[in-house]
Amino acid sequence: MNDHEVFELGDVVLQRGATLRDAKLAYKTYGTLNAEKSNAIVYPTWYSGRHWENEWLIGPGMALDPERYFIIVPNMLGNGLSSSPSNTPPPYDKARFPRVTVHDNVSVQHRLVTEVFGIEHLALVTGWSMGAGQTYQWAMSFPEMVPKIAPFCGSAKTSEHNIVFLEGVKAALTADAAWNHGWYDEQPTKGLRAMARVYAGWGFSQAFYWDRVYGEMGYSSLEDFLVGFWEGFFLDGRDANNLLTMLWTWQHGDISATPGFGGGYDEALASIEARAIVMPAEKDLYFPPEDEEYAVRRMKNAELRVIPGVWGHFAGGGQNPVDAKFIDEALKELLAT
Amino acid sequence: MNDHEVFELGDVVLQRGATLRDAKLAYKTYGTLNAEKSNAIVYPTWYSGRHWENEWLIGPGMALDPERYFIIVPNMLGNGLSSSPSNTPPPYDKARFPRVTVHDNVSVQHRLVTEVFGIEHLALVTGWSMGAGQTYQWAMSFPEMVPKIAPFCGSAKTSEHNIVFLEGVKAALTADAAWNHGWYDEQPTKGLRAMARVYAGWGFSQAFYWDRVYGEMGYSSLEDFLVGFWEGFFLDGRDANNLLTMLWTWQHGDISATPGFGGGYDEALASIEARAIVMPAEKDLYFPPEDEEYAVRRMKNAELRVIPGVWGHFAGGGQNPVDAKFIDEALKELLAT
Repeated sequence: MNDHEVFELGDVVLQRGATLRDAKLAYKTYGTLNAEKSNAIVYPTWYSGRHWENEWLIGPGMALDPERYFIIVPNMLGNGLSSSPSNTPPPYDKARFPRVTVHDNVSVQHRLVTEVFGIEHLALVTGWSMGAGQTYQWAMSFPEMVPKIAPFCGSAKTSEHNIVFLEGVKAALTADAAWNHGWYDEQPTKGLRAMARVYAGWGFSQAFYWDRVYGEMGYSSLEDFLVGFWEGFFLDGRDANNLLTMLWTWQHGDISATPGFGGGYDEALASIEARAIVMPAEKDLYFPPEDEEYAVRRMKNAELRVIPGVWGHFAGGGQNPVDAKFIDEALKELLAT
Repeated sequence: MNDHEVFELGDVVLQRGATLRDAKLAYKTYGTLNAEKSNAIVYPTWYSGRHWENEWLIGPGMALDPERYFIIVPNMLGNGLSSSPSNTPPPYDKARFPRVTVHDNVSVQHRLVTEVFGIEHLALVTGWSMGAGQTYQWAMSFPEMVPKIAPFCGSAKTSEHNIVFLEGVKAALTADAAWNHGWYDEQPTKGLRAMARVYAGWGFSQAFYWDRVYGEMGYSSLEDFLVGFWEGFFLDGRDANNLLTMLWTWQHGDISATPGFGGGYDEALASIEARAIVMPAEKDLYFPPEDEEYAVRRMKNAELRVIPGVWGHFAGGGQNPVDAKFIDEALKELLAT
């Protein structure tokens, strides 16, 4: 997949102190930037996602219509396309790849938007899951640039339960001796498969499994779904160190940790100026609606709109047309205001 | 812990076809069997639980009052006290320990109750989690003996989502090469610790972590809770093969698989005669209230009573007095009718 551009960032000093040398930000754009540079939308990727895995929400007639908007999908640091443990040369490769925060991601995306495209105002920032976290961070870090946000199935701060869920995922991956603290030559596939099985219970809701909705996705049995969808997902070009890098980013997501901001989480939420439609999924097991209700109550200009149904976190993954339409319609409404 | 009795079962032919030779059922009783043999309560153990870990629900002034009732706590096969991979001599030890079903457990418990104590009618069967599964199985297998049941935080059939949750737990444990397909000499502690971390997100609710209720339990931080409570839990005399044996039992729990019963799950539920108070916990992540609502709607004589609050599955674990009182009061009411 070389259908994307790479922005050479040079040496980037990261929030936690390390320097990411010759850093690269891989991105893809859809549509055309208008003369006023007023039609740009940033749509960051999610945990392990690559830009092409965001494309289900982009298309003619949709809110993110390339005929109207200039949609920029920046790949998250650590996802294997932007600078990552798997593609950084020694000595910063593999287990030595530095800690990257959500703030770091948004900082380099801001450089892309301003330095490469000369954009001063965005029409919208939106994203799923960790992409929602980046969306919140955009609003927090660059309020004057971001009038509207639509974070879905994510949060502005990673909750303690979410941290615990990720500890389980990490423990399963790293229990495989082949991981070797990151110094592997071949992927630790036993650990990746274990991680997939742990993730499986979290990604979709209890009711999704009760109703065997995986059947609609083309899987013939529960075990077929666990192998075909879940193990397949984590074996599909995903790298163990990359996954651990992004997992650390996720666990440490917190808009109140923005450099220069002195307040706590409540104050950070209250400081967000952007008009927001916040869309948790009704049965999301690691970004439960309650947490986003908490956030919306503290934000100035936000509306909570819960995605109904049984898909849980994957309501925002683009696998089913009903939830995709729900999100798309909210984006249309937000863009029209 | 040798404060218990052992019933020598002889050779037990199991539901799936293997023979468990010189099988042992470890149990403890509390109180005295009256002359009419009418005051016996069976209170089976849960996943990895031992009889002493059931004792929080037994005591003077409580529903399970040893001054009124004769309470029998049979240890589940595979729990390390009853016949288990860890205590069975070769050739049926370790990875060769046979598959045991919930039905097998209840069958040998029935032998204990009838052959050792000569009891023909029980006052009540109750239990938490897999103990709830055994409770349902008692009502299914021996309707004439069981007038009342109180399953809490469990189910009569293991749901597909619950199976997936357990797949994640199993994958984490068995990703440790030291497990060696069961042929270890030392416990695979890396796998046990990984399993503990996976379990941690499931055992308590999102809100439990949000509210940092672990602080009330004496843990000073999230990581302290993960190590002190969760890793400590699985390292506390628990054996990897035993855990995998009970996990298989759990995954295959299904009252409609009772030998001789020809119907499906709905018919099995409809066949239960016992008066039941069914108590799922509001925020239980692997035995969600919806599943028990489904069951209660199909049972003849059952009431759903949801345990409110943030403790999730561990609402039934005896760690907090509010939920313990809720359960105890329901048991008192059920015993009084």
